[in-house]
Amino acid sequence: MEKRTVYLDNNATTPLHPAVKEKIKEYLDYFGNPSSVYTIGREANFLLNQARQYAADFLNALPNEIIFTSCGSESNNTVLKSCARNVKKNGKKHFITSKIEHPAILHTLELMKRDDDVDVTYLDVDSYGLVNPEDLEKAIRPETVLVTVMFANNEIGTIEPVEKLCEIAHKHGVLFHTDAVQAAGKVRINLAEMPFDFLSISGHKVYAPKGVGILFARNNVKDIIYPLIAGGHQENAIRAGTENMLGIIALGEALRVLKDEMPSEAAETLRLRKRLEAGLLSIPHTKLNGHPELRVPGCVNVSFDSIEGESILLRLDLMGISVSTGSACSSGSLDPSPVIMAIGNNPERAHGSIRFSLGRENTEADIDYTIAAVKDVVETLRKISPIKLD
Amino acid sequence: MEKRTVYLDNNATTPLHPAVKEKIKEYLDYFGNPSSVYTIGREANFLLNQARQYAADFLNALPNEIIFTSCGSESNNTVLKSCARNVKKNGKKHFITSKIEHPAILHTLELMKRDDDVDVTYLDVDSYGLVNPEDLEKAIRPETVLVTVMFANNEIGTIEPVEKLCEIAHKHGVLFHTDAVQAAGKVRINLAEMPFDFLSISGHKVYAPKGVGILFARNNVKDIIYPLIAGGHQENAIRAGTENMLGIIALGEALRVLKDEMPSEAAETLRLRKRLEAGLLSIPHTKLNGHPELRVPGCVNVSFDSIEGESILLRLDLMGISVSTGSACSSGSLDPSPVIMAIGNNPERAHGSIRFSLGRENTEADIDYTIAAVKDVVETLRKISPIKLD
Repeated sequence: MEKRTVYLDNNATTPLHPAVKEKIKEYLDYFGNPSSVYTIGREANFLLNQARQYAADFLNALPNEIIFTSCGSESNNTVLKSCARNVKKNGKKHFITSKIEHPAILHTLELMKRDDDVDVTYLDVDSYGLVNPEDLEKAIRPETVLVTVMFANNEIGTIEPVEKLCEIAHKHGVLFHTDAVQAAGKVRINLAEMPFDFLSISGHKVYAPKGVGILFARNNVKDIIYPLIAGGHQENAIRAGTENMLGIIALGEALRVLKDEMPSEAAETLRLRKRLEAGLLSIPHTKLNGHPELRVPGCVNVSFDSIEGESILLRLDLMGISVSTGSACSSGSLDPSPVIMAIGNNPERAHGSIRFSLGRENTEADIDYTIAAVKDVVETLRKISPIKLD
Repeated sequence: MEKRTVYLDNNATTPLHPAVKEKIKEYLDYFGNPSSVYTIGREANFLLNQARQYAADFLNALPNEIIFTSCGSESNNTVLKSCARNVKKNGKKHFITSKIEHPAILHTLELMKRDDDVDVTYLDVDSYGLVNPEDLEKAIRPETVLVTVMFANNEIGTIEPVEKLCEIAHKHGVLFHTDAVQAAGKVRINLAEMPFDFLSISGHKVYAPKGVGILFARNNVKDIIYPLIAGGHQENAIRAGTENMLGIIALGEALRVLKDEMPSEAAETLRLRKRLEAGLLSIPHTKLNGHPELRVPGCVNVSFDSIEGESILLRLDLMGISVSTGSACSSGSLDPSPVIMAIGNNPERAHGSIRFSLGRENTEADIDYTIAAVKDVVETLRKISPIKLD
C-alpha cells in the first residue's frame, strides 16, 4: 500500500477552499479600514458589506442580522453572556442546554454558574445523541431565559431536532440559540424558515480561515446582545474592534461558493462516508457512535473494543491519515469524551473511539486506503492488547 | 502636480509589510488545528509557538506572557473586565484612566460604570495631551484596582509618562495596564525594563492583518485574567476559540521584521514627519495638536482655523491623499474629537483638525505632494468660508 496523505478531521478544521485562497491573495493589498471615510476606507467598507450579503444569502437572513466575530466560541459566549446580563432587568436566570454541547457552551455555562449566579439544566441525550423535545418541555421554568442546543454534534455528527426544540422554547417565550458550527456547510440552514433567535458559525469549519466567525442575531431580539468587546461602533456597535477584513472577505467567499456547491458535495461526502462506515464496521468488535441517519454527511465515529483511540490515532498518523479521538478543543485532556459517555458508553469504550470526518477534498482512494490502514492498525494493536476479546 | 496615491492614515491601519504578505501566501496551505495531536496539528502548533516567541522577543517578555487575541479592543476589554470580575473577591472597584484614551477603554469603562457598579476617575491632560503623574498620585484610593493609560495617543501621538505612572500605581499596590496599540512598532517597548502588568497591541497597526492582537499579561498577575471568551483550553485557557493561525503567523512575522527595521524606519519617519510638519505649520492660522517632542515619529495633527476637517479630508481624498479627522473607531460621529477638546481647543478648532500619520511606505515625494495639496485645499476652502481670519 503506497502511503497517502488523507485528512479526515474536517470537524476539527478544514483546508481553505481554492476560491478562498485566491480571494485572500487578491485582497492582500486592500488594507483600508472600513471605518475610514476616504476612498480606500470606503472600498474596504464595500467589501465588508459584500461579505455580509454573501453570509446573509447563505443563511437566508438579513445582512443586518449578521455579526462578524472572531470565532464560533466568541459567538456562543456573546449569546450566553448577553442573556446573563439581562438577569438584573428581567430576573430570568435559568439556562437549558444539552449534555453534549461544545466546550464553548458547557465551559462558559460552568463559569456563569460559578460567577454569575445562573442556573443551568443539562438535557440528557439518548443512545444516538438525540435530545428529547419532551425533556425540554418539562425543563422550562418561568425564569428560563435561553435554550441552547447544537444543530449537529461535533464528535458524533448527530443532528438535533433544533426546529422542534426552538418551537417549544418559543411557545414558552424563551429564546433559542443553536451552535451551528458543525452543521453549516453540511446541511441547509434556512433562517427564513427556521425561527432560531441566535445561531453561531465558525469560518474554519467551512473552508475559510481560522479567526473569523458569525453570530446571527434576529432583528427582533438583537437588542438583547451585550457587546463582549466594547469600544468602537463596528458591527452595529455590537462587536467593537477593527474588522478582520481578510478573514471576513474569505468567509464571505466560502459561503458564496458553498451555497452552490453544498448539495452535490454533501451527496458525494455521504457516499464516501457510507463506504468508510461499512468498511470500519466490518472490523469485529466495533460500534458506531451517533445516529445512523440523522447525521451530518461526513462524520463517522466508531468505538474499537479493547484498544485506546490515542494509539490508533498515532499509528494512523504515521500512515499519513489524520483522525481525532474527540473535540480538538478538548485535546490534551486524559478524560474520556463526555459526548461518547453521554450516549451510554463506558469509559473503556469512550477511550477506544475515533472520529473520522470527511471534507470536500476526500476521494474514494482516500477512503479505501483508510479502511485498509485501520484494519491493519486495529489488528496489530489487538494482538498486543492485554484485553482479550471473544 | 501629477496625482499621487499617498496614504497618511497609518494610525488608523497599515498596509501589510511585504514580508508579511509573503508569509501569508506561504502558509495558505498550512491549515492544521494547533490543538490536534497528529503531524499536521503539531506543525500548526509549532508555527503558533514560533509566532509567540517572535512576539515575546519583540517585547522582551516571556512567551507564556503573550496571549493572542482578535484585536487591541479585545485585549483592552479583557483587562478591564477581568479587574471588574475581581470586585466580589477584593472589593476593589475603582479604575483610573485618562480623558484621551481610545474608545475601547473609555466606552468599555462607561458600560462598566453603568452595569458593573465600578467607579472611574478620568485624569486630565495638559495642552500637549500629557497626564500629570501627580494627578495620578492624588487619584489613587484604597479601592483602586487598575490604572490604565495609553502608551501613545492615537490622534495626537503624544507619548505618556507610562513608566512613571506605572511606578506610582505599583507603589500603591495598584495594577497598571497600557494600551500600546499606537506605540508598538514606533517606539521601543522593553517589558523587562518597563514593569507594566498588562499591555495591548493590535496587529493591523504594525503592518500585520486586521483581526489579530496581543494581550501581554505578566506571569505574576496573569491569574487575574478572566476569559472574555471561554470554552477550549487555547492560549493557556485564557482565551478560547481556535487560534487565528494566518493572523498570528503574520503578526509574528511583522514583529520579527520590525524588531530589526524599527530604529532606521523610525528615524526616517521622523525626518519625513518634521518636513511635513514644517510645511503644514507654514500655512497661516494653523496650530499643532500634541507634544512637540514627546510624540511618536509618524504623527502630526494640525488644526486649520475657520474650516472643517471633514471638507479638507474629502478634497485631499480626491487628490489621492488619505488622512483622518480623528480615530477611525469614532468616525461617523458628528461630535468634535474628545482628544482635541481635552487638550484645550474649542469645538471649532477641534472640528478643523486633521491627523496625518506616516508609515514605512511614505517617501519625500509623498510629503512634498501633500504639503502642496494641503496648502491648495486650505486656501480654496478659506476663500469660501463664512468665517474671516485676520
